[in-house]
Amino acid sequence: MPRDNLSRDVIIVGGGPAGLTAGIYTSRARLSSLLIERGLIGGQIANAEWVENFPGFPEGISGIDLGQRLHDQATRFGLETIFAEVTGLELQDDRRVVKTTEGDFIARAVILAGGSSRQKLGIPGEEEFTGKGVSYCATCDAAFFQDQSVAVVGGGNAAITEALHLAKGSSKVTVVHRRDQLRATKILQEKAFAEPKIEFAWDSVAERIEGKDFVQGLRLRNVKTGQTSDLEVAGVFVSIGFRPDTDYLKGLLPLDEIGQIITNEKMETEVAGVFAAGDIRRNSGRQAITAAGDGATAAIYADKYLT
Amino acid sequence: MPRDNLSRDVIIVGGGPAGLTAGIYTSRARLSSLLIERGLIGGQIANAEWVENFPGFPEGISGIDLGQRLHDQATRFGLETIFAEVTGLELQDDRRVVKTTEGDFIARAVILAGGSSRQKLGIPGEEEFTGKGVSYCATCDAAFFQDQSVAVVGGGNAAITEALHLAKGSSKVTVVHRRDQLRATKILQEKAFAEPKIEFAWDSVAERIEGKDFVQGLRLRNVKTGQTSDLEVAGVFVSIGFRPDTDYLKGLLPLDEIGQIITNEKMETEVAGVFAAGDIRRNSGRQAITAAGDGATAAIYADKYLT
Repeated sequence: MPRDNLSRDVIIVGGGPAGLTAGIYTSRARLSSLLIERGLIGGQIANAEWVENFPGFPEGISGIDLGQRLHDQATRFGLETIFAEVTGLELQDDRRVVKTTEGDFIARAVILAGGSSRQKLGIPGEEEFTGKGVSYCATCDAAFFQDQSVAVVGGGNAAITEALHLAKGSSKVTVVHRRDQLRATKILQEKAFAEPKIEFAWDSVAERIEGKDFVQGLRLRNVKTGQTSDLEVAGVFVSIGFRPDTDYLKGLLPLDEIGQIITNEKMETEVAGVFAAGDIRRNSGRQAITAAGDGATAAIYADKYLT
Repeated sequence: MPRDNLSRDVIIVGGGPAGLTAGIYTSRARLSSLLIERGLIGGQIANAEWVENFPGFPEGISGIDLGQRLHDQATRFGLETIFAEVTGLELQDDRRVVKTTEGDFIARAVILAGGSSRQKLGIPGEEEFTGKGVSYCATCDAAFFQDQSVAVVGGGNAAITEALHLAKGSSKVTVVHRRDQLRATKILQEKAFAEPKIEFAWDSVAERIEGKDFVQGLRLRNVKTGQTSDLEVAGVFVSIGFRPDTDYLKGLLPLDEIGQIITNEKMETEVAGVFAAGDIRRNSGRQAITAAGDGATAAIYADKYLT
């Protein structure tokens, strides 16, 4: 039995900056609005210890605090929130049925803002040692590796941010990157190169995670020479990108090769009344502020679609 | 003589939320960045008395304060700002030359975030009485009309926001709108309909502004019946939309019929190294938050273009 299947004007899937900002805008437009979040209000930004680049906060703000502020603001204008996992979407004429672990919910328009989740390495030992030395979130787990050696796999902004964070407490941080230069933005690169605890394993991929009860080592392979080597580490932080949570949308909406939703600059998908915003869409800026902007845009065009 | 024509990585035209957020991002990416603003830091948002829908500020924030915070944040990361009017753009191979009243400035990439200015009515008396009862900004000029009758021409969010603001001090506010319903968002409509000082002249256009030294009346024409009538008012607030400041771009970039710059969802124009963000582009959400999101997106893709 659905917990509540009264029809709304808008259902927003995902409670990160995109979904919450969409909620601020749809609620202010007096559209009855339901936000469905699976886990944590704030989405990925809730994992960010300190956010320096969200405009409006010159001194920075913690990710948890930012997420909470967005939710407070949307709730103040009337946004309703429930916690459930979305498992499907059905298009019935002008009704959009959102299927969840808490039942079905119906709306005239849907804004998909479910973000993306961490990409896995897919190597031996990864699954076995997850939670036992393998982690996808330095902000969450760094404290377990005080004065120990760790590896970070990846070379983008997220990976380098995690490495810098880990360097505060760990004894050594080895950044394992498949290329010979980082993808991260210059300011982060400079910080990482200036940090004596951070070392780099260039042109290298992680091949196997080893240990007994907990992680003890990471086997690397140099992609240019083919040579393997072993890194003695107690922790492996995986930061090689994100995978959008769009499996349930296959065949319904045009997705790109990695499953991201294709939108135009109005955040419209090819299906009328279905919008996408934030990291779930192709060519997203992958930033809290670009997600928030997307969310407002999606809400504005959803409002136009409905009226 | 140019005041300073050293070449930068990026020139940002316009110091509203779009340009300032672009500046936060380009500066953090360690791109040498110059922002050129004609008037006021914050752009149009600086005229907003109170902003309730910029995510992150559940209690709201004054527009002046928000603009200042964005500028502080960008400056902190290294953004340079000058005050000048942009008069032209020249494309020379991989150099973009921005011509201004303070000389020429050169960059490898340009982000056009100059926003838009108020559309004029183009009726007799408008120019003559500008500053003498005709105004384009209630936040700026409402105090001059304490206990007097005023008219607001327009029916969108901006017009109704201005009418509500004026109703605080003026004795009567007549909203003149060419259609029989408002375009403004529902929450604003509800507020306006609940405000006893606000009246509506539906299906009506402003035909002539009359007065001696100052405005004394507004002649209206009903577009359905053709009948004219005279409204006794001391002030006429014009709020019928915006015109992008893109005259200097004609022939250089694809513009739409009202002069807005056409971009894709990466904020790229058809010209390599030239990006547009915020109200100056077609299909902008016309909100501070959508402009800020656009600015970050433009900066991210400008960074990719340059590296």
